[in-house]
Amino acid sequence: MKAAVLAIGTELTRGELVNGNATWLSDRLTALGFEVIEHAVVPDDSERVRGTLARFGREVKLVVCTGGLGPTSDDLTAQAVADLAGVPLVRDEHTLARIRERFRRVVGTAVGTGQGAKPRAVPRAMPLNNEKQADLPQGARALDNDEGTAPGFVLQIGGARAYFFPGVPREMQHLFTRYLVPEMTPEVQRTSHQIHIRTFGLRESEVAERLADIDVGGALQRPGVTIGYRAAMPEIEVKVLVRAVDEATAQRLAEQTAAQVRERLGTYAYGGPAYGRGDSFPAFVGRQLREYGLKLAVAESCTGGLLGKLLTDQAGSSAYFLLDVVSYANQAKRNVLGVDAALIERHGAVSLEVASAMAEGVLAKVSADLAVAITGVAGPDGGTDDKPVGTVCFALARRGGKTFAERRQLLGDRERVRLLSAYAALSLIAQAVGSFTKPAGVLP
Amino acid sequence: MKAAVLAIGTELTRGELVNGNATWLSDRLTALGFEVIEHAVVPDDSERVRGTLARFGREVKLVVCTGGLGPTSDDLTAQAVADLAGVPLVRDEHTLARIRERFRRVVGTAVGTGQGAKPRAVPRAMPLNNEKQADLPQGARALDNDEGTAPGFVLQIGGARAYFFPGVPREMQHLFTRYLVPEMTPEVQRTSHQIHIRTFGLRESEVAERLADIDVGGALQRPGVTIGYRAAMPEIEVKVLVRAVDEATAQRLAEQTAAQVRERLGTYAYGGPAYGRGDSFPAFVGRQLREYGLKLAVAESCTGGLLGKLLTDQAGSSAYFLLDVVSYANQAKRNVLGVDAALIERHGAVSLEVASAMAEGVLAKVSADLAVAITGVAGPDGGTDDKPVGTVCFALARRGGKTFAERRQLLGDRERVRLLSAYAALSLIAQAVGSFTKPAGVLP
Repeated sequence: MKAAVLAIGTELTRGELVNGNATWLSDRLTALGFEVIEHAVVPDDSERVRGTLARFGREVKLVVCTGGLGPTSDDLTAQAVADLAGVPLVRDEHTLARIRERFRRVVGTAVGTGQGAKPRAVPRAMPLNNEKQADLPQGARALDNDEGTAPGFVLQIGGARAYFFPGVPREMQHLFTRYLVPEMTPEVQRTSHQIHIRTFGLRESEVAERLADIDVGGALQRPGVTIGYRAAMPEIEVKVLVRAVDEATAQRLAEQTAAQVRERLGTYAYGGPAYGRGDSFPAFVGRQLREYGLKLAVAESCTGGLLGKLLTDQAGSSAYFLLDVVSYANQAKRNVLGVDAALIERHGAVSLEVASAMAEGVLAKVSADLAVAITGVAGPDGGTDDKPVGTVCFALARRGGKTFAERRQLLGDRERVRLLSAYAALSLIAQAVGSFTKPAGVLP
Repeated sequence: MKAAVLAIGTELTRGELVNGNATWLSDRLTALGFEVIEHAVVPDDSERVRGTLARFGREVKLVVCTGGLGPTSDDLTAQAVADLAGVPLVRDEHTLARIRERFRRVVGTAVGTGQGAKPRAVPRAMPLNNEKQADLPQGARALDNDEGTAPGFVLQIGGARAYFFPGVPREMQHLFTRYLVPEMTPEVQRTSHQIHIRTFGLRESEVAERLADIDVGGALQRPGVTIGYRAAMPEIEVKVLVRAVDEATAQRLAEQTAAQVRERLGTYAYGGPAYGRGDSFPAFVGRQLREYGLKLAVAESCTGGLLGKLLTDQAGSSAYFLLDVVSYANQAKRNVLGVDAALIERHGAVSLEVASAMAEGVLAKVSADLAVAITGVAGPDGGTDDKPVGTVCFALARRGGKTFAERRQLLGDRERVRLLSAYAALSLIAQAVGSFTKPAGVLP
């Protein structure tokens, strides 16, 4: 069943705002079983709104439209829809009463700043402008919006049922969940299933090469199976989508294919079916540390705190993350991590020796089980013939164990070298965790 | 002159990826003088690609298309364009040679393992898949891509000149800047001028309130002047756009209006005309530290390295950034920063007292002029009645000066609390820098 998404707003076509609504809607519509065949974004321009809606009315069964329902002069969605349908705008008294009531009830922007500040309740009067929001195309059904003043509405346009929602994400999501989901779910027959597999460490073309025999035209390819790729630097997501006669068949086929994909990708695929689709590599590594009951310390230089940031993006990271020393200057390496000045003098700050001393130094500071260190040349300046930009040394120290160090040459600009460095360190942590014994009673 | 933007990719219509490219392109096209009348997003579906391109060829003078130029089977843009134009795909030998050369030149993830290992240059063999990227519609002009393997190309579709770029933002932006900007600038008659002013520390509605008398309908508003807002969490960008009879007039009027805007925003506007538009607040603060010849040390807790990451995103930050201790665990605060265990016991880790001790502790480790510390409850767990989620304490220590500390209640989820905390700390640094004396001979 085909669907299309339309966003209305000159702020979007002028590039002042990212169209996150279309992404959110597409994700939910796809999950409901719709095939989204287009997003369109048009300015606050009645003719283009009408033209696009008329076109979608010929092409799809469901249109979801966001924006242009506000109180100001450039909000023209209701009028454009009425013009397209050849009907007048009619004031909806129920909706008007709701808007009035909302202005009475609602508390203004509550602000707390400074020591001991409390939120303040600020009552608001309804500006006349807002009355306009109760004017809907004749024949439309109003959708009560508990999150804002603009009501949504729904009506038939050509062969499509068209839902109109405000552009404010919270309000749009509220109306989508409250009205569209229960109303449209019975209309869709789900016949597809999708599985996401995340990988790190290969390029997109290398991933594709490993999957060539199960991808389009490959020897193992099954009818109805599509393999897709999404590069989310530096991770790559492989998507196995199956369309079949019914959902159960699609799911079975998707799981078989996903197992083959995982086999081809070996250790480059991480997570596995037990992990959530949203799990990033840092989240995966954090989860591993937690499952093994291990504590980590970090010493960074060129990455400047990025590795710590990625690890602590995860809620609950205090269970495994103890300390990160970003020893950017050599005096910081000496004074905080106890790296010998002579070692830096002899081998340079970017060396296996200094990386090892950093990892061992930070491990000595706290009761961590393992420590990782990064020191490198992120660029754009600071490269030499021996150690060009992108040269990064890593070390992994284990309590009571031998320290491992390696040097890599990473490619790209400063941002990319830093990101790849942090991910390479995460990789070292993941490998090290695998060498510990998993405590009993922990689920896989 | 009208333009349209088309993005191709099922990952977009399935809601797996936000279409940030359309926003970036629209912003730049608007600045060049184009009126962007539509964004469309379609799946990897040749028929829809062809239909949309044909429609745009009737409606606009410029089409910018992103995506579908990769090496995998779902990348079908070149074939769809060739089919629409009724021409075959032709292998472009120059482009093929460039792709091959890129694979030769580029050193793979070279791995040295163990102590004393040397980096190995690992030439990568070009996977056969990548050859496909050199196949372009007959009559198309190839655009050399220095940032990746996929070339762009350009050809006429109906009444429109159509540029095709890879979907990877870095590559797309590179080709846009290198080819489209110089080629299309002479085609557009510029009669507009836009100035961007960045602010931090106010909410969008507070910024709008301060600018009410220069905004639409305000007492100081001039004809042809539009004030726009773009929230780039946690910064807000104010855009002054002027359309006039010619560019010089537009520029003069824009500069007058921008001066008024800066006056209304006071210290909330940062940077000023001397700074690049792209200067983020962290870049601005870093530049200030450098201009004043000051060195900084940082102690973080709930932000986990984010502040260090933001400061070292800037190339050359080693001139002012010495050390960041991310003391996530209390033992790290004690062992590395010398925070008294009794102080933590008495006041809690999130307190003005501990923040002050962290700032003073990290200042003592290196020869920095000032140090900032952050400790707070980022959530979602860990809040108490006294210190709910979003409670964050900051301290700023100066060598030989008094330490300043403050507590703030920040609103939002974990990610937002962390980001606002890092920015609040940057704000403290910026204020502190202003109290030093600027060395002679430094440009404003």
